[in-house]
Amino acid sequence: MSELPSPLQRVALSLDVACFQVRAGTLVLLLMRRSEPPFSGSWALPGGLVLPDEPLDAAALRVLDERTHVRGSYLEQLYTFGDPDRDPRGRTVSVAYYSLLMEGGQGEKPGRGAEELAWLPVNALPPLAFDHDQIAAYARQRLVQKITYAPLAFRVLPEQFTMADLRSIHEAILGDALHPSNFVRKMLGRWDLAPVSGVRDRRSRRPARLYHYIGPPEILGPPGS
Amino acid sequence: MSELPSPLQRVALSLDVACFQVRAGTLVLLLMRRSEPPFSGSWALPGGLVLPDEPLDAAALRVLDERTHVRGSYLEQLYTFGDPDRDPRGRTVSVAYYSLLMEGGQGEKPGRGAEELAWLPVNALPPLAFDHDQIAAYARQRLVQKITYAPLAFRVLPEQFTMADLRSIHEAILGDALHPSNFVRKMLGRWDLAPVSGVRDRRSRRPARLYHYIGPPEILGPPGS
Repeated sequence: MSELPSPLQRVALSLDVACFQVRAGTLVLLLMRRSEPPFSGSWALPGGLVLPDEPLDAAALRVLDERTHVRGSYLEQLYTFGDPDRDPRGRTVSVAYYSLLMEGGQGEKPGRGAEELAWLPVNALPPLAFDHDQIAAYARQRLVQKITYAPLAFRVLPEQFTMADLRSIHEAILGDALHPSNFVRKMLGRWDLAPVSGVRDRRSRRPARLYHYIGPPEILGPPGS
Repeated sequence: MSELPSPLQRVALSLDVACFQVRAGTLVLLLMRRSEPPFSGSWALPGGLVLPDEPLDAAALRVLDERTHVRGSYLEQLYTFGDPDRDPRGRTVSVAYYSLLMEGGQGEKPGRGAEELAWLPVNALPPLAFDHDQIAAYARQRLVQKITYAPLAFRVLPEQFTMADLRSIHEAILGDALHPSNFVRKMLGRWDLAPVSGVRDRRSRRPARLYHYIGPPEILGPPGS
């Protein structure tokens, strides 16, 4: 083809964002309750349409801000979902993004089209609108995979952390208890971790060694980075 | 929004496929020379438009077949490229797929819109049409990343292979010579490899132990798999 297709052959392009957080040792996902049809009253990932001239990464940040007022997160493209029947209104292809946010408030409050927001445990999600169950499940799988080969955990820990802090992030994401001393050995073998000299954690009575991560921030950034 | 956007707010959705192969120890990429504008005469990834009712995975297989007659490959979604200026004709968002194919002919011959096909070494690619340089570079990065954490190499090796066969695939993809005995130790530690009892490679004069891979085929399949 040398011409773009007629407008009727084009598709609506939307974008959905799965933001995870580890809260008190539990992996939770940021959801909004839709105030508009379709799926009015249902829980859904924050999402919306990509504007005609908008780069995808910019659209992801804008959509998340508009729906939830969460800003400035590092969002990563996850996968593009294009089942012809995924939207009852007609063909809509959705580019999904995901993120692991630091523990704590992110300034979230309901935005346009959102009746309510909640961080819900990934192990007890309600049925979600559209194919968002599938998107959420895949985002979680990717998170599980990514934490084993990429230095993801260090982005959501304070600069200095104990091995117990690091293990707690892993356990929440993997959904499994990990053996403490095996875990320490594995982490020290895998990542560039430097003990913080002379400083020990004051949070517990038994002093625990603090570490900081001194490796590269990512193993593979987005295209062109 | 409760209605889909007007047709003028929709986007053209295309799909591009990066097929890699290791040929005689070199990583090569399947390219087509375009016979149609834009970029007529330029090398490009095989690509085309997604049809209005077509699932994305089906579109990837169809487009590759139409452009190159290569069929039945395992294609994996790579990333969606949506820079507003990536197509001189107007906004086109492209879902990119990639694949590592087995060595040998794949039945490739030029299809619609393709003047010529070639497997070109990734280290000496010509300038490509659209943003295909960026897509090809990112696909290659992903391949490098994936071969270290997923059992990708075993999909393109014969069922029984020597450590030298396995090393050759890794060296071609990583673009680096690997130390033979370190490599063997690393592979045996990382993957479920079983020696083929009593059988040794007949291709060389010095007998080499044959192995087969007995682990799972993938660590993370596409969504819903």
